[in-house]
Amino acid sequence: MPRSVKGLEGAGEWYILKELIPELKEKNVLDLGCGFGWHCRYAREQQASSVTGVDISEKMIQRAREMTNDPLISYIKASIEDIDFSISQFDVVISSLAFHYIKSFKSVCEKVSNCLKPGGSFVFSVEHPIFTSRNEQDWYYNELGNRLHWPVDNYQIEGIRETTFLNENITKYHRTVSTYINDLINTGFIISAVKESVPSDEMLKSIPKMIDENRRPMFLMISVEKGK
Amino acid sequence: MPRSVKGLEGAGEWYILKELIPELKEKNVLDLGCGFGWHCRYAREQQASSVTGVDISEKMIQRAREMTNDPLISYIKASIEDIDFSISQFDVVISSLAFHYIKSFKSVCEKVSNCLKPGGSFVFSVEHPIFTSRNEQDWYYNELGNRLHWPVDNYQIEGIRETTFLNENITKYHRTVSTYINDLINTGFIISAVKESVPSDEMLKSIPKMIDENRRPMFLMISVEKGK
Repeated sequence: MPRSVKGLEGAGEWYILKELIPELKEKNVLDLGCGFGWHCRYAREQQASSVTGVDISEKMIQRAREMTNDPLISYIKASIEDIDFSISQFDVVISSLAFHYIKSFKSVCEKVSNCLKPGGSFVFSVEHPIFTSRNEQDWYYNELGNRLHWPVDNYQIEGIRETTFLNENITKYHRTVSTYINDLINTGFIISAVKESVPSDEMLKSIPKMIDENRRPMFLMISVEKGK
Repeated sequence: MPRSVKGLEGAGEWYILKELIPELKEKNVLDLGCGFGWHCRYAREQQASSVTGVDISEKMIQRAREMTNDPLISYIKASIEDIDFSISQFDVVISSLAFHYIKSFKSVCEKVSNCLKPGGSFVFSVEHPIFTSRNEQDWYYNELGNRLHWPVDNYQIEGIRETTFLNENITKYHRTVSTYINDLINTGFIISAVKESVPSDEMLKSIPKMIDENRRPMFLMISVEKGK
């Protein structure tokens, strides 16, 4: 499963997600879909007391392990749907661009709620439902190859989307903005903020084409709190 | 300003909005952008103790007054931005398809919060940001006149959209889903539910073309509670 690379479109996601993440100092942090462990190491730089990273990819977990010798970061190879931590084990749960690969978001909400302390934070990003509505996740071009607009279709038809990224086939799960939000609320979370990606000034300066990121949101970020 | 007609696309909005409206019995209800007073009369059918309807259109308010002799419904000709009710005067504030005509949603939130009792409900619908992103609020067609998809563009560029409805020019204000939600949260509201319009079974049976309403959401409905 290819992942977005920090510094490319990932940068548009991270500079917003970071703003939503609470103070991590002396917190026990869980990272769902940790990939190469970038956010786990970030959490430790912020002086988290412990960080647990979970990813289904053996290869990524292995790379993540190689990239640190910090005894306070531990990596677990598991599917996000299969996590089974102690009740109230974590203060903060983060996840970057992983849940659109997961079939049931409701079950993610329940698992996270179980292992999060009352008053704890859950902050995540996903590909935006405007971005994932079609199998062809691309602009609509005219015959000159110019981007005319971003096409939305079958928005209300949730489920599998078969798409490609760097010539590889990828299965994603499209769901609506309202499903993300209502699943969280119905699990008992309180919505703190909802963000939709916009290009940063820095991105616009270095890559002028990034202005198109204002034309449709690529990422959706949500931060919630577990009721006390 | 033309308004959607109950029974046409309005039906797709109302059957969802209705589910979000709390029990109105013995409640003091405010309806912002009441038009011909349809929701005001509905609230009284639900045994609301009093209903106040506000609309900027003299003509609509006049028609609304003609359509009832209920002494417990009162109509006020005013812009939603200019309302000035007593603190905690209402138990429930509703609004159907009006706020996308209002420049500042934040100021609406503040006005509503002021006149709503602690624990009171605020439930409204607007045209969905996916629907309002472009000036041309229409499907993208191929040369045979078939609907190819719904085009989204300039999603992150909030502000005026100049569009037409039944040959009349209309000014709307586009804003993002996240702006609607964050303005509410930052005013102190707690998000209870977010819905995006889908065609009802009834609509699909009577107008098969309504299946296209699954392709993009036309309306966004949000219900929130004022903290106690």
